[in-house]
Amino acid sequence: MLGLMQDWPLLCHKIIDYAAEQYGAREIVSRTVEGPITRISYIDARLRARKVAQALERDGIGLGDRIGTLAWNTARHLETWYGITGLGAVYHTLNPRLFPEQIAYIVNHAEDRMILTDLTFVPLLEKLQDHLKTVERVVILTDAANMPETNLPGAIAYEDWIADCDGDFDWRSFDENTACGMCYTSGTTGNPKGVVYSHRSNVLHAMAVSVPNVLDLGTKDTVMPVVPMFHANSWSLAFSAPMAGSNLVMPGPKMDGASIYELLDTERVTFTAAVPTVWLMLLQYLEETGKELPYLERVAIGGSACPRSMIEKFQNNYGVHVMHAWGMTEMSPIGSCCAVKPEYEGLDPEARLDLQTTQGFAPFSVEMKIADDDDKELPWDGKTFGRLKVRGPAVARSYFKGEGGEILDDEGFFDTGDVATIDPLGYMNITDRAKDVIKSGGEWISSIDLENLAVGHPDVAEAAVIGIRHPKWDERPLLVIVRKPGTNPTKEDIVAFMDGKIAKWWMPDDIVFVEEIPHTATGKIQKMSLRDQFKDYRLPTSDAAE
Amino acid sequence: MLGLMQDWPLLCHKIIDYAAEQYGAREIVSRTVEGPITRISYIDARLRARKVAQALERDGIGLGDRIGTLAWNTARHLETWYGITGLGAVYHTLNPRLFPEQIAYIVNHAEDRMILTDLTFVPLLEKLQDHLKTVERVVILTDAANMPETNLPGAIAYEDWIADCDGDFDWRSFDENTACGMCYTSGTTGNPKGVVYSHRSNVLHAMAVSVPNVLDLGTKDTVMPVVPMFHANSWSLAFSAPMAGSNLVMPGPKMDGASIYELLDTERVTFTAAVPTVWLMLLQYLEETGKELPYLERVAIGGSACPRSMIEKFQNNYGVHVMHAWGMTEMSPIGSCCAVKPEYEGLDPEARLDLQTTQGFAPFSVEMKIADDDDKELPWDGKTFGRLKVRGPAVARSYFKGEGGEILDDEGFFDTGDVATIDPLGYMNITDRAKDVIKSGGEWISSIDLENLAVGHPDVAEAAVIGIRHPKWDERPLLVIVRKPGTNPTKEDIVAFMDGKIAKWWMPDDIVFVEEIPHTATGKIQKMSLRDQFKDYRLPTSDAAE
Repeated sequence: MLGLMQDWPLLCHKIIDYAAEQYGAREIVSRTVEGPITRISYIDARLRARKVAQALERDGIGLGDRIGTLAWNTARHLETWYGITGLGAVYHTLNPRLFPEQIAYIVNHAEDRMILTDLTFVPLLEKLQDHLKTVERVVILTDAANMPETNLPGAIAYEDWIADCDGDFDWRSFDENTACGMCYTSGTTGNPKGVVYSHRSNVLHAMAVSVPNVLDLGTKDTVMPVVPMFHANSWSLAFSAPMAGSNLVMPGPKMDGASIYELLDTERVTFTAAVPTVWLMLLQYLEETGKELPYLERVAIGGSACPRSMIEKFQNNYGVHVMHAWGMTEMSPIGSCCAVKPEYEGLDPEARLDLQTTQGFAPFSVEMKIADDDDKELPWDGKTFGRLKVRGPAVARSYFKGEGGEILDDEGFFDTGDVATIDPLGYMNITDRAKDVIKSGGEWISSIDLENLAVGHPDVAEAAVIGIRHPKWDERPLLVIVRKPGTNPTKEDIVAFMDGKIAKWWMPDDIVFVEEIPHTATGKIQKMSLRDQFKDYRLPTSDAAE
Repeated sequence: MLGLMQDWPLLCHKIIDYAAEQYGAREIVSRTVEGPITRISYIDARLRARKVAQALERDGIGLGDRIGTLAWNTARHLETWYGITGLGAVYHTLNPRLFPEQIAYIVNHAEDRMILTDLTFVPLLEKLQDHLKTVERVVILTDAANMPETNLPGAIAYEDWIADCDGDFDWRSFDENTACGMCYTSGTTGNPKGVVYSHRSNVLHAMAVSVPNVLDLGTKDTVMPVVPMFHANSWSLAFSAPMAGSNLVMPGPKMDGASIYELLDTERVTFTAAVPTVWLMLLQYLEETGKELPYLERVAIGGSACPRSMIEKFQNNYGVHVMHAWGMTEMSPIGSCCAVKPEYEGLDPEARLDLQTTQGFAPFSVEMKIADDDDKELPWDGKTFGRLKVRGPAVARSYFKGEGGEILDDEGFFDTGDVATIDPLGYMNITDRAKDVIKSGGEWISSIDLENLAVGHPDVAEAAVIGIRHPKWDERPLLVIVRKPGTNPTKEDIVAFMDGKIAKWWMPDDIVFVEEIPHTATGKIQKMSLRDQFKDYRLPTSDAAE
């Protein structure tokens, strides 16, 4: 027996329709790539999105066609997403921070028929164009006055491209499981793999994260997504903010402390979101200038672990509540967010900060579990750590064109590749990447915990921990340290510093000092290359065991 | 091209799972029918819901079977909903305030195989049992100690019924469009008609109304649904409050001022919802006792129009923010809620109160339009009024067994039967029922506006306005008045009072004084019977026109 309710598919363009109808006068403020700050209403944004749909259709684009976007956070970029999805085509965000050959691979793999790009990236595309096999046209997100000379295929200024369109366009309707967006995720091995969002997943995800226990978005808010739209589906803010009737402030290409501060201040931003490095720049700017953040209420921090000191500074020095969040491109992307549940409201300030260094708890529609290597579910005791697995309507079930094969377990859970603890109240804490955890005698040791402890020593500039094969324990930790210039700590100094702060059996079996630790393009420690470097290393404890 | 996201159906029992996992220690506090106040956690509630599913299955109940519930708001009633839906069966709320023959009709029409009832309604069911053709068993929501002698079929005390079940039950999985709940709506004509909710509609509706712009529900809240679960799907609170991790306070059978106040106070309720009559009793109790409402933050008022004076009292005397809401059984039920948008934040107190007497604006996933009799869409100018039509995933597309025929227009909109204005910011204001509006020369006159104006005269006890056939204008208004005891206003007095307060052409063509105006069982004016009474009435203006 079926329910007798209406068939009203969850489609992304219903979000911009709702925003235009109910919050029509609210604004999208943008710092443009050309320089000036522009303001348009949600009514304007919907009109322009409809023009985009008409222009795409005129160019022969239709249901299921992929449209690459290589662009900063601006109103233009936002309206193109709605125009693309309203026609049934698929926005495909390209991350300009990837290596050029990766961008070419991704465009070809997705078979993007068109690319919409900011001025910034025209030179990059010109260099790549001979390698792009499917791109018929490049639309440059600018007007005629700012249009550069270029030989990119079918190059046209965006404002000219949509100039003849009148916006009299009926959004297409189709099954809510239709593809609407793509974002490639680059692992440390193999080629990037494409995550394909559906209309349904984007709409449900936006609904799930807007509630008071998660991002708490409403008309009360002016939201600035500093996190780029090309980074993990813009943390859903391109959908959740218009749905909530929040004003949007788009920072364009400038993410330095002064530029970010200017918009936070003049636009009275109440909620913003970005990775820790952006906030480091802002906090440094505030300290240098003595400026304050009188309007900002909440900041969501994710992408990589947020340092305790950053939470402390935002809250204690500037009165801004920090929401530590975690997610993945494969999760649309928000998997958890650290609001404080009533049971924890009474914590003393230090314990509260400890809580806020966790990645928080799952919103409705995200199921979590932790499991051991045999996929046995582990308890939520805040101590036991295991592979973090997730399930939900906005979690990937496979990658584009089946790359990477089957990615769900027998119960339909996706393995995040992270290792985490979950406490009895559901607070999840990432302790390591699964491939970096050290498996010693069947028990797991977190490389990240050891690294964080080691860098607490005043003479340590950087630390990395990797597992080294061991005849008795399978693996034991090796601690690799870069000394601070002008210091000369010994193994014994470091051991003495760490002793008593960790379980005895977690103590690294050896410590080596190096000049440099290898990093990835995005600044993370390249453990794979480090493991390769130490693949023949023999721990002193190995002899005794044999 | 389809998205590649997981197939995770929106099922109601995922809500109680989420509540148990993430908000497990939060409580459902109940005033029981037996008297004592009980407390259980969401973990307990899930366990008991699983036992209910096991007991139902043991009794041969399965997918699609309807289970009547005739019960007050208690934890037991709540857990049975989740147990029923988790098995794939359908909860069917029975409204004890209906006439007994209507209840029998509804049970037979829905083919309820079982009824779960509170002690209160055992005598009622005993009287009806010979007329109930499909009911195999009646479970009485009590324990052995309180179990009455009864000859109801298969009668058993609820606690005995689930006593042998261990709660080790895996929720069933099925398509999210599967039926999960039923509620009959009784129009003024014909038999009651069954609205059939799906799992999808209930889950989406709960997500849509939890956001800050609508009910704003979170772990910060303790929610007391005074609105009965048998009234319009409990305004979604049986789903949205557990989803939001709010504590629930269930008032059981007692809705008098003192009982409601006791729970508001001892349980520190922050949010509550009911029809105006309940709040009249509470406000009267507060005035008599001089008590205050220090914990209550927000009260949602709907079901019938909330008087301006009630909003004023709650806000000015008790510091409680009023959220005027509107909905229908056919809408799951919330269609709009009156939060104050930023554009209206600057209103002076009187204008703000005016705004709050409107029914507010639609949440995401509810589309609204107003249309004239030719279905031409009318402008959102706050003045033009037309038939209010709605569309959305939690709006009915037909009634059970096709009763009432086709109920959607060509564009898929459901006609609410209300007449309303919508202002440029989306605030909807119900001005009349479509069947009561007076159609004068192609223009519409609101009977409710005229009635509200007439009762403002100090000598008028009650007023009703109906349309009377007119040779020139098709219809013209007749004002029917019941004088206050001991007063003797004349036609001229009333006309003089109304003059200048309405458009000239709205002035009733005649006024008659009567001893009594007929009412429905729920206290509303019975316009149909009034129209019947005056069907041969000839307006004085008719002669002049002929």
